Amino acid sequence: MSRTSDPAELFAAALDGDRGSIARLLSYIERGGDRAREVGRLAYPHSGDAYTVGITGAPGAGKSTLTSAVIGHLRALEIEVAVLAIDPTSPFTGGAILGDRVRMQDHSTDPGVFIRSMATRGHLGGLTLATPEAVRLLDALGRDWILVETVGVGQVEVEVAGKADSTVVVVNPGWGDSVQANKAGLMEIADVFVINKADRKGVEETRRDLEQMLDMSDLPRDAWRPPIVATVATSADGVPAMWDAVLAHRAHAESSGQLLERRSFRARQELREIVTARLREQARQICTGERWDALADAVATHDLDPWSAAEAMLHPT
Amino acid sequence: MSRTSDPAELFAAALDGDRGSIARLLSYIERGGDRAREVGRLAYPHSGDAYTVGITGAPGAGKSTLTSAVIGHLRALEIEVAVLAIDPTSPFTGGAILGDRVRMQDHSTDPGVFIRSMATRGHLGGLTLATPEAVRLLDALGRDWILVETVGVGQVEVEVAGKADSTVVVVNPGWGDSVQANKAGLMEIADVFVINKADRKGVEETRRDLEQMLDMSDLPRDAWRPPIVATVATSADGVPAMWDAVLAHRAHAESSGQLLERRSFRARQELREIVTARLREQARQICTGERWDALADAVATHDLDPWSAAEAMLHPT
Repeated sequence: MSRTSDPAELFAAALDGDRGSIARLLSYIERGGDRAREVGRLAYPHSGDAYTVGITGAPGAGKSTLTSAVIGHLRALEIEVAVLAIDPTSPFTGGAILGDRVRMQDHSTDPGVFIRSMATRGHLGGLTLATPEAVRLLDALGRDWILVETVGVGQVEVEVAGKADSTVVVVNPGWGDSVQANKAGLMEIADVFVINKADRKGVEETRRDLEQMLDMSDLPRDAWRPPIVATVATSADGVPAMWDAVLAHRAHAESSGQLLERRSFRARQELREIVTARLREQARQICTGERWDALADAVATHDLDPWSAAEAMLHPT
Repeated sequence: MSRTSDPAELFAAALDGDRGSIARLLSYIERGGDRAREVGRLAYPHSGDAYTVGITGAPGAGKSTLTSAVIGHLRALEIEVAVLAIDPTSPFTGGAILGDRVRMQDHSTDPGVFIRSMATRGHLGGLTLATPEAVRLLDALGRDWILVETVGVGQVEVEVAGKADSTVVVVNPGWGDSVQANKAGLMEIADVFVINKADRKGVEETRRDLEQMLDMSDLPRDAWRPPIVATVATSADGVPAMWDAVLAHRAHAESSGQLLERRSFRARQELREIVTARLREQARQICTGERWDALADAVATHDLDPWSAAEAMLHPT
């Protein structure tokens, strides 16, 4: 493993397939700041070919097992794949502490598979910035398929998952109760529905429930209607059919212009995040130091009004 | 009631005691933006004399009833008072929809009392900016005592309450269960503890519980130790004692330098909010328009990397 901390050297080693260097670069991206930006600049010219598949659903739905089964399916077809497992609720860095997901360990020695957990470091902006950058790096390293698994069905998870080119929403028979809070959000982002753990009872009711919600959701006549596939991820039953559904959605997205539209939306989101992060950094720099202390004290003692003080901070003469 | 919408005219009428004009000015503050800033600039030179008392605690603890009893106590002493009832969880403007608090209606015809509900309009930044501005306006209009009642014991409420010169935390006998989540936060901001509904059983246990938490909280030897007062707000029992505790804390805060320290801390908070709001506004303006669309599309089609695009937006040449 390379011992350098220089992003350019690490990137060169990563292009040669050195997994330690890839992990290091992803840690830089996770941490944000100047180094993350440098990794991004290095990766960008090599990127642009990967296709991302989001896999999301309630905790316990079997997303990791399904992801692992998908990896097996793709590897049997000799397709290389990278997996980002995103956990917005964990304050720890996934790479260091969560490690690779236990269920995916089967693939840990396969050089055609790269798996990485990512977590925020407390601030959500971090993840919305880091996820597209991590995808860009893996893309630059030649992975044509990137699976992005998000834990949970909250607002943030749905947002991250909604950034994929195709999004698979995983539910279970009798799902209704567990995800009630954000059913509408999941309906909005799903390109493929998977009823996992389909060896349990209630599969047909769940399918009817989903079809009914799709009927009510007022899709335009020529729009993509998310297919519903039943799987048993533990035995890989239904996984080829699920992947075919993803491929069908990809073909639709490419031909209909939906893919370009989605990527354009994502580009706007990322740009907005970058601009906001820059301005936030600017605010942090403004609100510190001797000048700041003097102005704040003047406001506290009623010698200066807060707007004039803010003005003086923003536009020092 | 004045029919003008000009802040300067409204402010002049408000100085003459016109309640409709005060309400109008507070609505401007609630809405934010240029008009809010103008109200702030008008009020500032007249402000600086008021003392704020925060009243907070779990929903149902009896804060409104206690506030109403405090008003009665102050009015009996011929002290004028203003009340801001802050509800960060409500998306509605308090002034228009919640109206003045039902329990405080007793005082609605008393010209020595001004009561106003305030709510966010969805964004929290709004409230952290609006509350000090509303206080400043009421201060400018000559109210020497401003009670700021906050609903709930979440992070935001604690933050708003913590901005008062003296903070009263209202609990009930057997309070332990209802506020468990944020006990530490309440302990940190309390200058006076009130055990309201003290006609119920469990007062002494609650008092012991509080004393024990105070013992464990490692106060410096010369620090203020929050007194614990039992009240029955519905009959005003204990309210004079509670107010005396507030006056004692005020005297301590003024002589120890704690008041200046707190106001200095608040000034920094407000300044930071103003700077952040300005930069947020700047981001909003940047991320729109033809130039933005063109750059975002270039990023989407991989013709331009996102950092160069952001740079181009932030520093147009």
